[in-house]
Amino acid sequence: MNSLRTTRRVEFGDTDMAGIVHFSNFFRYMEAAETEYLRVRGLSVAWREEGRRFGFPRVSVTCDYVKPALFEDVLDIEVTLERLGNKSATYRFDFTRSGEAIATGRITSVFCREIPGHGLESHEIPESIRTKLQPT
Amino acid sequence: MNSLRTTRRVEFGDTDMAGIVHFSNFFRYMEAAETEYLRVRGLSVAWREEGRRFGFPRVSVTCDYVKPALFEDVLDIEVTLERLGNKSATYRFDFTRSGEAIATGRITSVFCREIPGHGLESHEIPESIRTKLQPT
Amino acid sequence: MNSLRTTRRVEFGDTDMAGIVHFSNFFRYMEAAETEYLRVRGLSVAWREEGRRFGFPRVSVTCDYVKPALFEDVLDIEVTLERLGNKSATYRFDFTRSGEAIATGRITSVFCREIPGHGLESHEIPESIRTKLQPT
Amino acid sequence: MNSLRTTRRVEFGDTDMAGIVHFSNFFRYMEAAETEYLRVRGLSVAWREEGRRFGFPRVSVTCDYVKPALFEDVLDIEVTLERLGNKSATYRFDFTRSGEAIATGRITSVFCREIPGHGLESHEIPESIRTKLQPT
Repeated sequence: MNSLRTTRRVEFGDTDMAGIVHFSNFFRYMEAAETEYLRVRGLSVAWREEGRRFGFPRVSVTCDYVKPALFEDVLDIEVTLERLGNKSATYRFDFTRSGEAIATGRITSVFCREIPGHGLESHEIPESIRTKLQPT
Repeated sequence: MNSLRTTRRVEFGDTDMAGIVHFSNFFRYMEAAETEYLRVRGLSVAWREEGRRFGFPRVSVTCDYVKPALFEDVLDIEVTLERLGNKSATYRFDFTRSGEAIATGRITSVFCREIPGHGLESHEIPESIRTKLQPT
Repeated sequence: MNSLRTTRRVEFGDTDMAGIVHFSNFFRYMEAAETEYLRVRGLSVAWREEGRRFGFPRVSVTCDYVKPALFEDVLDIEVTLERLGNKSATYRFDFTRSGEAIATGRITSVFCREIPGHGLESHEIPESIRTKLQPT
Repeated sequence: MNSLRTTRRVEFGDTDMAGIVHFSNFFRYMEAAETEYLRVRGLSVAWREEGRRFGFPRVSVTCDYVKPALFEDVLDIEVTLERLGNKSATYRFDFTRSGEAIATGRITSVFCREIPGHGLESHEIPESIRTKLQPT
């Protein structure tokens, strides 16, 4: 399965003076859903292994807003791994509320590993991670 | 002129455990730059007139990340009004640091006015605002 | 019962470049816990009644940090209504992780109602709300 | 001089559905002002030296709110180093708008240095830093 359903309750501090969720917070919601997608597969967005850092930093994100989300709304979020490239993973996030479309976003994350003295560098996703990301 | 140059200093709280600006914060930087673009033209993203609310809520946003931004970086941001539609304005934001590309984002905002009892509804951008948005 | 136990999972975007939860985010965690305390009692931090706004804006907050909280930590939060005054409620928030103290914070919120044309004004907490806040 | 005056413009994304700056954002404002206080003295809240991390993590913070701050307000912030202990520094932040009190907060930060394999540990503030923090 290359998808996950989760929910998110809108908090007071997520709203802005227009009375709706500030548009930037949808990216926090997406990140939490992406992290959950990875976690249930035994993966993460950032970790250490033998002293080196690994992770999936984001290289491209989008969001289209259809209807405003309000304080105390419980949003349904469907995460779908839309594309698994050599080095990157693209997730789609469909936000709905009682079946009504609220927003759709995408995050493309690139697999990176630390090269001592050179920071993080992108790298092909190892087979062990690829298998966990998208079980057949 | 349909562009504006501004700067933004990265704050400690803008960073994440990867040691770089959290990707979602670029949208806060863009919003502040969009607001400044509007402010210097005598406009805003949200205001009241004769008891009714007006504003430019966002309907579509994107960001592509090229290089990480770090604590205390002073980013240069060039805002360009890329497209002025009947009801919407699309801005491009080019983030650079000492001339080096950091990220490029876009925000599309739709002109809305409050219909009493019906909330905000999208509407054609009035000529008075259109003229200020993009002086010839 | 004048207390509530809840949990909060630390998200990637909650951390800062020191690798720990940014201190300001504990206030978001506290607010969510305060809101939950109110919600399970049929109350809220902000609502409308007969066209007027009501709510519990914060007038004083504190937090003492004992140990850092990390990405993916699941924090236990105990909310205690420590004091119920004429107009205000003071909550204490004890954050622990597997029984180990992480932080302790306090929020004092004042009951307010909208006076048309004058914005929000503080007011004695009505008996109906007082009863729900602290059932005997 | 053990004080600094700075300003902060309220951004749209800083507000909440009550139409005012969300209380937690005052801590971001304080942090930026603390960082500026340090920066003009050649110091920082987090840095590396010979491969080791140094910094001033916060151990205790408070804020009292007097009047709400609104979108586009330009707040005056006076930072005062109120107390310089053996290991810690306590700053007071007075927020005003056109001379009117908005909020007063405090941050206590503890000097820490990395002990390889043990993370950050608190330590006496070295004389070189102490001199810069509070020039006579």
